[in-house]
Amino acid sequence: MVDERAVIGAILGSLKRLGEVGDDVALAPRGEGNLVVKVDVLVGRTDVPPRMTYRQAARKAVAACVSDFAAKGARPDSFVVSVGVRKGVSKAMAVGLGLGFADAEREWGVKLVGGDTNETEGLVIDVAMFGWGKKVVRRSGAVIGDALVVTGKFGMPPAGLKVLMEGAKATARFRRAALKSVLAPTPNLRAGLALSRYLTSSMDSSDGLARSLHTLAEASGVGFEVTNLPAAGGVREFAALNGIDWQKLVLEGGEEYLVVGTMKEADLADARRSVEQAGGGLYMIGRATSPAGEVLLRTKGSSRKIRDFGWTHLR
Amino acid sequence: MVDERAVIGAILGSLKRLGEVGDDVALAPRGEGNLVVKVDVLVGRTDVPPRMTYRQAARKAVAACVSDFAAKGARPDSFVVSVGVRKGVSKAMAVGLGLGFADAEREWGVKLVGGDTNETEGLVIDVAMFGWGKKVVRRSGAVIGDALVVTGKFGMPPAGLKVLMEGAKATARFRRAALKSVLAPTPNLRAGLALSRYLTSSMDSSDGLARSLHTLAEASGVGFEVTNLPAAGGVREFAALNGIDWQKLVLEGGEEYLVVGTMKEADLADARRSVEQAGGGLYMIGRATSPAGEVLLRTKGSSRKIRDFGWTHLR
Repeated sequence: MVDERAVIGAILGSLKRLGEVGDDVALAPRGEGNLVVKVDVLVGRTDVPPRMTYRQAARKAVAACVSDFAAKGARPDSFVVSVGVRKGVSKAMAVGLGLGFADAEREWGVKLVGGDTNETEGLVIDVAMFGWGKKVVRRSGAVIGDALVVTGKFGMPPAGLKVLMEGAKATARFRRAALKSVLAPTPNLRAGLALSRYLTSSMDSSDGLARSLHTLAEASGVGFEVTNLPAAGGVREFAALNGIDWQKLVLEGGEEYLVVGTMKEADLADARRSVEQAGGGLYMIGRATSPAGEVLLRTKGSSRKIRDFGWTHLR
Repeated sequence: MVDERAVIGAILGSLKRLGEVGDDVALAPRGEGNLVVKVDVLVGRTDVPPRMTYRQAARKAVAACVSDFAAKGARPDSFVVSVGVRKGVSKAMAVGLGLGFADAEREWGVKLVGGDTNETEGLVIDVAMFGWGKKVVRRSGAVIGDALVVTGKFGMPPAGLKVLMEGAKATARFRRAALKSVLAPTPNLRAGLALSRYLTSSMDSSDGLARSLHTLAEASGVGFEVTNLPAAGGVREFAALNGIDWQKLVLEGGEEYLVVGTMKEADLADARRSVEQAGGGLYMIGRATSPAGEVLLRTKGSSRKIRDFGWTHLR
């Protein structure tokens, strides 16, 4: 019995590609640029929480791919979908899926150009998105001394999931915001595109902040020291109200759809201005350090290791 | 409760794209050519018969996409996969999937460039394949009087499925060939590429010959008269041995991975030579006729309608 990363490792081993480091998107060289491709599957049983409509599920499946393009600084162009539905599906459900794809088309300027449907045991929406890019930001470019940046604050979607799945307590206002972050995730594509030219490395944070930090550290051969844990507004109060560790919500949640990356600190002011003009935010939360692979949280003189934990399927 | 085509119709309706006719592959214009994309999902429960290994399943998932490229005359370049496996999957299974993808890479000259894995209730392999083409053959170009052609003979995979699933009787030799056609389907990409410049319309036959004929007829606004039903060697004897209608095996099977198309009869000899040089075959089985949408089987003076029946998911 093996987990998701071991499955990927075994597949790559069979292909004799173990040396090749993975990234958020795949590239196929074409002329002077690259075809940029991302495939992402939404599985009803694990990715669709209670109260999420079919329309929201279809939109979320597209959002997950858009988020990877945003993190890599590549503009998506089109997408194809494979929709797997249970035998006995209603027409209303199919209409809902179509409306969700149409929402995504409008929001991110992408176009559904084809697809197919299949019978599955539960809802499966597979999106393959493609676009073009001369250069995309890789996971492997961080250098010791670089500023560690994120495009938003963390902990809201995991809090929303706790409300939806476990009936966690929340103020009415926090509840609304947290549910919205789960049911209608909104990767900021414009902000990602504006930010990318400043980045030395980056990835999408959809498996959680801690996992993203460890993945970037491993790919780049650096460590990270986090000095400023970026908690979304109300997350600490929500955690206290429910007797949960707020740092766990911020570090080990997931489905955040933000960018985690590194850049020269000298570029920070320019980059922040560009991102803010695109309707986003930019926060420096630490720095790339050595030794390689060590990810520390340092606050007020004390420091602890941030463990490599996040959303891994099959675990 | 609706079937696969109704699901697609409802999704397209929501997108206000009802007028757009589907085709085997999707196109996204780029420079002087097109990015050609095909996405196809293999679902363990419905697409993987008993005795098929994980290696064969992975190869088959890629074969299904290659078959669509072959039918459209577009050369595939790369593919990405999403693999969904049950929690508790073994390393051996993951290794098997990787070996199957490697088989496909070698056989069809395509390259796996990325992907991801997910936890699903049963095996799901989603392949998104892409390539480039200046022009692809559409389903809509058949003209009354065109020769109706196929690149192989039909009925072997459905016979193989009857052996595997229902224990149908067969000679040892036929059994081997029929099982091979199911477990290791082999779309002939070189033959498809060689044929395409002669075709006025085409599609892949993976949903069965009857369904393909009706789909081409509808897209092109023609009818078809089939005068020579192309049964693979031994299929009639196998049907007789098991008390099955051999015409049903030929017409209503599926997973054939051949090309069904139309062309000017004057081009037939040249086209056959090209396809044979590429290791394939070409058979004229009838002609495009009127009225639109009517698909007839005419043999020795008698004629009957060929019903629109084939492999539709969710039915």
